Amino acid sequence: MNNNNSTSTKDKTYYLKHKNMIQAKGYAAQNEKTDLAPWNFERRDVGPHDVQFDIHYCGVCHSDLHQIRNDWFKGIFPMVPGHEIVGKIVKVGAHVTKFKIGDLAGTGCLVDSCRTCDNCKDGLEQYCVNGNSGTYNSLEQDKKTPTYGGYSNTIVVHEDFVLHISDKLDLAAAAPLLCAGITTYSPLRHWKVGKGHKLAVLGLGGLGHMAVKFGVAFGAEVTVLSTSPNKEADAKKLGAHKFVVTSDAAQVNSVKGYFDFILDTVSAPHDVNMYMSLLKTNGVHICVGVPPTPYEVHAFSIIGGRKSLAGSNIGGLPETQEMLDFCAQHNITSDIERIDIKNIHASYERMLKGDVRYRFVIDMSTL
Amino acid sequence: MNNNNSTSTKDKTYYLKHKNMIQAKGYAAQNEKTDLAPWNFERRDVGPHDVQFDIHYCGVCHSDLHQIRNDWFKGIFPMVPGHEIVGKIVKVGAHVTKFKIGDLAGTGCLVDSCRTCDNCKDGLEQYCVNGNSGTYNSLEQDKKTPTYGGYSNTIVVHEDFVLHISDKLDLAAAAPLLCAGITTYSPLRHWKVGKGHKLAVLGLGGLGHMAVKFGVAFGAEVTVLSTSPNKEADAKKLGAHKFVVTSDAAQVNSVKGYFDFILDTVSAPHDVNMYMSLLKTNGVHICVGVPPTPYEVHAFSIIGGRKSLAGSNIGGLPETQEMLDFCAQHNITSDIERIDIKNIHASYERMLKGDVRYRFVIDMSTL
Repeated sequence: MNNNNSTSTKDKTYYLKHKNMIQAKGYAAQNEKTDLAPWNFERRDVGPHDVQFDIHYCGVCHSDLHQIRNDWFKGIFPMVPGHEIVGKIVKVGAHVTKFKIGDLAGTGCLVDSCRTCDNCKDGLEQYCVNGNSGTYNSLEQDKKTPTYGGYSNTIVVHEDFVLHISDKLDLAAAAPLLCAGITTYSPLRHWKVGKGHKLAVLGLGGLGHMAVKFGVAFGAEVTVLSTSPNKEADAKKLGAHKFVVTSDAAQVNSVKGYFDFILDTVSAPHDVNMYMSLLKTNGVHICVGVPPTPYEVHAFSIIGGRKSLAGSNIGGLPETQEMLDFCAQHNITSDIERIDIKNIHASYERMLKGDVRYRFVIDMSTL
Repeated sequence: MNNNNSTSTKDKTYYLKHKNMIQAKGYAAQNEKTDLAPWNFERRDVGPHDVQFDIHYCGVCHSDLHQIRNDWFKGIFPMVPGHEIVGKIVKVGAHVTKFKIGDLAGTGCLVDSCRTCDNCKDGLEQYCVNGNSGTYNSLEQDKKTPTYGGYSNTIVVHEDFVLHISDKLDLAAAAPLLCAGITTYSPLRHWKVGKGHKLAVLGLGGLGHMAVKFGVAFGAEVTVLSTSPNKEADAKKLGAHKFVVTSDAAQVNSVKGYFDFILDTVSAPHDVNMYMSLLKTNGVHICVGVPPTPYEVHAFSIIGGRKSLAGSNIGGLPETQEMLDFCAQHNITSDIERIDIKNIHASYERMLKGDVRYRFVIDMSTL
């Protein structure tokens, strides 16, 4: 390996088992203080249950930036980010049954899990109690081998953690479905949001714009809550029925006790108590973002109306496939802006300012 | 009225409509800085739909002390606390159909509500969107007339807000069912806690000991989580199957990811994140206490396992009657210590130290 990972610190037997390593290239951060830069590395050879697919597009998630900067926890470096990965299968293992060479394929936030705990058996690999393997900044199930994500040209994944992507969908615009899509689809399904419900989507970014599309597709009345009046036209274009500027007290008062659900996609610190006052009795405020500071919830915000502050994390493999199939059937993709990987830092800067409608997707042919 | 409420500040027409006021006596706080002391006051005459019942016992709730001290919000003074009220009917209005003279009766935290909003129509008067009338420190539905609670000898309440108490139950021990009972019964019913569930009860006080009794009666495996190792014997006596000392890391680790529900009865500030780590996937941490500071919930505490922090406030009238009937059927009452009303302050002091097993009940014959 022509990188600064010293094999001397690794389990030699792992490498012996995988002597025909695949040479891969990508963009990596060497530590939390360096920018992403080209990096050559190795991926394991295709095992009997693995597929290898060449990466055509990879979405840019806010969490990529959080992780290369150690915002949440100490990362594993060198780090190749990216967990909204789509491409085309180039090799399949001897026992692979679900894919063949030439199929479109995708991988989201997970590349493996224990497969034995109750959650894994229930298809909730995102909640694997023994610790799943994230697509990057994580370890394989041997708990030793680092995983490398989608800012790269090719990837090897166990077929159980690979998704089928319909050729009806624009492939680049399908990439963000693997994280932004399932992260919003899953809670809406779990809480059975649909006809007769009033859904508020808080924050109109990568996640929020998908939440609007799914909420509308599920039959809910969808309201976008935003601090930016200038997002109204866009919200309506995405299908939202209403738009409330949260800095306008009169507009906020008009929706007090109005919503059955709020899907909160905001990753910056914010006061959830104000938003929870917009919920009906039994209303649920569902958080899918990860602000750096705790949510401060006043007791009266939850006991006054039997309300809940709930969280949801991506989705399991079966539900991710269900979501992708739903998207193919209803022609739902992400609104994206394709970028050259060389512009990744400028794109991060724009993402931080909310200057993207609504997801950057790296065209991996630019690598 | 021989008190410091000046009638000149009130709506005269209200008094004209109620010229045959009932002379009542009780204990009141004249303001947030004074202790409770004997006070004579008037209650309205019995209207066509009202019942009057003489108060035999009134439970002492922690919220009584919070309210006479303005801990939560500015109170309405003079304040006669008490919302765990039981006694015997002495007068019924001409149109009363549910009660007759001599019936045992109870009133909890509510004496009226708008009766027209969706929640009231659904029997969720505790979540009345137009503002219900609390039994004390609140206003009648005229939004002018203060309500006075159960630290008194008699009370007049619309029959719809009066509950039947079975004569199978010890009347004094039934009093706390009207608040501590329904406050724990209602969330356990709402979240359908029962057979096959692992329920943790956090805090073994007035509410917690009722939660243990109901949890056991509903068929759940009940674990008491407590900082006090010396409460174990009591917890087991109340029916708890397990006891975990939360200051013992090994004991806490043994129940990581173990519970379906935590019923959190603690009113002091505490870190819910530690407790939420004891929940299974989809677990719900249900708060029924009102700590003075907000709950601080880390995003990872809820998104990692699709968990919820939920709240619940007492219960509606139909469910309160259901709870009382359930208690009569299963012989469930509160564990109480009867007190002379003259010892109310000493009892507050002991309550603050957790030195009561598990509820003080004022014997109103001592008034």
